[in-house]
Amino acid sequence: MLFDNKPLLPDDLAAMDEKQTADLCRKLRERLIETVSVNGGHLASNLGVVELTVALYSVYDPYKDRVIWDVGHQSYVHKILTGRDAGMDRLRRPDGTAGFPKLAESEADSFNTGHSSTSVSAAIGYARGYELSGDKRHVIAVIGDGALTGGMAYEALNDLAQQRSKVIVVLNDNGMSIDKNVGGLARYLGKIRKKHSYLRAKRRLRRFLSKIPGIGKPMARLLVKVKNRVKHWVVEGKFFENLGLYYLGPIDGHDVYAMKMIFERANEIDGPVLVHVQTQKGHGYEPAEKNPEIFHGVPCFDPATGEIKKSSCCSMSKTFAETLCDIAAKDDKIVAVTAAMSIGTGLQDFSEKYPGRLFDVGIAEPHAITMAAGLVLSGRKPVAAIYSTFLQRAYDQILHDVALQKLPMVIGVDRAGVCGYDGETHHGIYDFAYIGTIPFTTIAAPGYASRLDEMLRMAVKVYDSDSGIPEDRRLFVIRYPAKERFTRENDPRFIKTPLKYGKGAVCFDGRKGGKADVVILSIGEVLEEAFGAALLLDEKGIKTVVFDAGFFKPLDEDAILALAGETNVVATVEDAIADGGFGEKVRLLLGGKSDPVVTCFALPNTLIPNDSVKNQLTACGISGENIAGVCEELLRKKI
Amino acid sequence: MLFDNKPLLPDDLAAMDEKQTADLCRKLRERLIETVSVNGGHLASNLGVVELTVALYSVYDPYKDRVIWDVGHQSYVHKILTGRDAGMDRLRRPDGTAGFPKLAESEADSFNTGHSSTSVSAAIGYARGYELSGDKRHVIAVIGDGALTGGMAYEALNDLAQQRSKVIVVLNDNGMSIDKNVGGLARYLGKIRKKHSYLRAKRRLRRFLSKIPGIGKPMARLLVKVKNRVKHWVVEGKFFENLGLYYLGPIDGHDVYAMKMIFERANEIDGPVLVHVQTQKGHGYEPAEKNPEIFHGVPCFDPATGEIKKSSCCSMSKTFAETLCDIAAKDDKIVAVTAAMSIGTGLQDFSEKYPGRLFDVGIAEPHAITMAAGLVLSGRKPVAAIYSTFLQRAYDQILHDVALQKLPMVIGVDRAGVCGYDGETHHGIYDFAYIGTIPFTTIAAPGYASRLDEMLRMAVKVYDSDSGIPEDRRLFVIRYPAKERFTRENDPRFIKTPLKYGKGAVCFDGRKGGKADVVILSIGEVLEEAFGAALLLDEKGIKTVVFDAGFFKPLDEDAILALAGETNVVATVEDAIADGGFGEKVRLLLGGKSDPVVTCFALPNTLIPNDSVKNQLTACGISGENIAGVCEELLRKKI
Repeated sequence: MLFDNKPLLPDDLAAMDEKQTADLCRKLRERLIETVSVNGGHLASNLGVVELTVALYSVYDPYKDRVIWDVGHQSYVHKILTGRDAGMDRLRRPDGTAGFPKLAESEADSFNTGHSSTSVSAAIGYARGYELSGDKRHVIAVIGDGALTGGMAYEALNDLAQQRSKVIVVLNDNGMSIDKNVGGLARYLGKIRKKHSYLRAKRRLRRFLSKIPGIGKPMARLLVKVKNRVKHWVVEGKFFENLGLYYLGPIDGHDVYAMKMIFERANEIDGPVLVHVQTQKGHGYEPAEKNPEIFHGVPCFDPATGEIKKSSCCSMSKTFAETLCDIAAKDDKIVAVTAAMSIGTGLQDFSEKYPGRLFDVGIAEPHAITMAAGLVLSGRKPVAAIYSTFLQRAYDQILHDVALQKLPMVIGVDRAGVCGYDGETHHGIYDFAYIGTIPFTTIAAPGYASRLDEMLRMAVKVYDSDSGIPEDRRLFVIRYPAKERFTRENDPRFIKTPLKYGKGAVCFDGRKGGKADVVILSIGEVLEEAFGAALLLDEKGIKTVVFDAGFFKPLDEDAILALAGETNVVATVEDAIADGGFGEKVRLLLGGKSDPVVTCFALPNTLIPNDSVKNQLTACGISGENIAGVCEELLRKKI
Repeated sequence: MLFDNKPLLPDDLAAMDEKQTADLCRKLRERLIETVSVNGGHLASNLGVVELTVALYSVYDPYKDRVIWDVGHQSYVHKILTGRDAGMDRLRRPDGTAGFPKLAESEADSFNTGHSSTSVSAAIGYARGYELSGDKRHVIAVIGDGALTGGMAYEALNDLAQQRSKVIVVLNDNGMSIDKNVGGLARYLGKIRKKHSYLRAKRRLRRFLSKIPGIGKPMARLLVKVKNRVKHWVVEGKFFENLGLYYLGPIDGHDVYAMKMIFERANEIDGPVLVHVQTQKGHGYEPAEKNPEIFHGVPCFDPATGEIKKSSCCSMSKTFAETLCDIAAKDDKIVAVTAAMSIGTGLQDFSEKYPGRLFDVGIAEPHAITMAAGLVLSGRKPVAAIYSTFLQRAYDQILHDVALQKLPMVIGVDRAGVCGYDGETHHGIYDFAYIGTIPFTTIAAPGYASRLDEMLRMAVKVYDSDSGIPEDRRLFVIRYPAKERFTRENDPRFIKTPLKYGKGAVCFDGRKGGKADVVILSIGEVLEEAFGAALLLDEKGIKTVVFDAGFFKPLDEDAILALAGETNVVATVEDAIADGGFGEKVRLLLGGKSDPVVTCFALPNTLIPNDSVKNQLTACGISGENIAGVCEELLRKKI
């Protein structure tokens, strides 16, 4: 634990000399490696902003000024410096420090982030409010070059330049988002970066000079000062200046002293300023410097070697990608689309196998979907893979640019369900509800990996005229979690049947020739819990059926009505919010017509805090034990 | 009707000499004024692109090449030139030419547009598809400077610059979106525009030279050629060039010859090109040149004088804005936020009364909402007013940046319900469903204007600690149509009661001391139809109650259960899609517990074609006659 878990205030930091500052940065880095290696989390991005955070908090007071960390996964240093180091031992755990900024956690947190590209908008709101109230506070947005590919950041910069609120935008340019950064702006930044690789040389020079007796620090600083001035004149920040922002930079993001100076300069400027800071992801930890993509978000690892202990393999994503590769081998019209998640969605393999057929558009989900609509109209067969929580950004594009044109399309919604330790901003639990409002859709959710394979093979048929998929359901969405959770595929009582369009299947049948006491209707990966409940009920002699619905839209109404007609208790199970979810659709279907008691296991539409996926589901009542218990109790009352 | 309703192909257009081209443009302009003056529609933007469209279709074949008109309200000239002039007599009517591009209407239409900023994304999709298939077709996106404030256009430009598909982006720069254009980029374009106002002078020079015997057209053309070359070198297109796009322009958008030349040049360039064309909104029709905002979208008008025949007053928007002004007079923390719709939402008055307190961010709904979240956190009390259909763009921001932070906020959702003649891209019918998936919300819908006034006064209390509004419902959304449709406020049988939070009210009571035969639960402006149905039923001696629910969330469950408990037939009425709507919520509430028959009048989740609002509702079964008829029939069966 650093500084007895107390915040280091600007005065403390500003009072440090160069050696003390370097010491502090070293300690912060060690602490990051230590805590992330045990808890998992975002490492490379935090190692990259150690000096930047120290420099910011030497000039700005995090409790009074507002510093907004875009995306927020790079806020660990911020958290340690603002009195939350003790909680870092339980980073991302329910009783520890959260992995993203949280208003509820500290007054030093200015805005809850998680999704990309929101910081400039939030900062402008703050700044305008303070201007109106006459509050003298600095407002700073720290945004990565990756987040700048998100359109709303540009909407904000455009607005900022026009209405000229005093916001300091710190562009934390590390040349990557989660994957390698894409886009014209990235290339432009790269050009600047290259031109000014002398920056790193300069830092080395300064260290060297500091060590020469008779020159020492003051002289070295003067030299830097002069260079900074020159740099400011030399460098092109024309892109931002054309927008109307005052541009300062680029500056070495691992040089605390230089950054402090530039922030002080930014404060003096009347109007919005963009400070271009160049950092290295993973800086100061060799394994992360070498593989920043891998150390972006990591599970536990060995801090000495950087060896990752648990596999980070996402089996469902892998199945999706492998199946898509297999389909693409036989059909050269298949192309893939993703938004800065080619690794996470497994599509990197696709791009290696089929160069030129993966379009990674950067953090730009709205563009991804509409671009895919253009691909469809050109005669291609695009398959998009986007995380559930980020696809929320493209709600209008799915509706307006795909559905209302009645275009066929295949969208893989990855990372569906509760997200575990990343917290409420990352849950993929709204997808049934929001995609369910869109017309002309098929919405499927596999209970296990081999079902996902079948579903994807079925989905791509939407592009063929003889697909067997109804004309008005050719926007085919498949939602699946990152990892397979179903463990019963080899259970002798598991019944596997081939996938049929719009049809579910009984996958556990405990009726033994009689009628079912309890029917469990399950959709998606919670088949694990549904099946578990059935086994428990079966042990008690309660005749139970598990129906793996497979399709949220269209619902297999005939099968559900038939099953409901022969039983006393119907339970629905899903890992999505109750509003607009599977349970509601079943209740609406059964309506007054059904005799059985219907009980729905779904997620409450409220904040679901950080925890393991299993704990999060259990806390919401979605566990084999609870489902079995509730069903048994309802059955007892009913009979 | 022009050219016997036949398409003019590139060869026809290219063969025309200067006089013929000028004649054509004059005729097109007359035809636009003629048809829009009778049918209403978008005038100024279409007058502005007459020469641009002619120039484009002299070079590109609209049936083979793909020209995508961003937003699409400027596609009338395109439609006339591609064989749809006959239908212009019934422009925007069910049997006439649609006001926006439609794949289903013609093979010359490349992409259905309606919402802003999608064209570059769609064009990239097309271009990539054609590159993969080896199809030699040109792909052109025509996008206005206003649409460039939308973030997804930037996402697309960024992607285009990186992956370098051959797309020609024509920036149709008229210095306005619907309202005056805002943003840093607009200012930048303005700078270029000013610098090159000599363009217009040049055009005049050319005309003058053409008339001098001995100089004539060839000489004039040569002069222009030289000037164009100079222009290309002189002008700064650095913003786009920094992004990695080849920039050509600016060019006079009313000079067909110059534009043809520049498009041919654009074709020769390897990689993506941005052609900057300067047009004047309303060009060639004085009333529209003078008031392009008013002639953006107009009802019928007198073509000779430009006098607008019917009032375009939007009474509900006006009420919203007037009430907000009144509240703001007493509370200087109130600020307003809109996205390029300060006129449409009535907020222009607000900005005149309270300068500096309206933030119009341009066509940038995602940014608008997140910026408003920053305003809340700074201590301000923002009220956003955004059209229902465009707010779809900000689904993620409402969820992620407002709801998940449990922030209070007031959002006025204007233009709710079916939209009439603009067609399916503009309906505000998904709002109950998609906002209904977001936690911590209050969702209200007034039946008439004075109710909207009450609701807004209640809503702004979310910012006070003693608001009486539950802590977990302080994201207060009010959805309302543009125009008040309720006509019965002075009917002696209309019962008006003061608004209570979360409570509906019986507004028609035909029970005469007995129990109700029919209970009509209505939400929003369809109170008109619900009330009309009640009057019809009442005439027949059927005891009817109309309950104006007012709140979609929280639902007034007690009152609904009580009313349902005493009646035989319950009807729900709403002008939103059935999925996730009010009717579903009522059915879920009543579930198996209810004895009465429940019937739901809502909109089907499918394409609702252009027609008047009344016809659209009637076609979906939402009319007094139909509601009364269905209820009577159900009652007859039940008893």
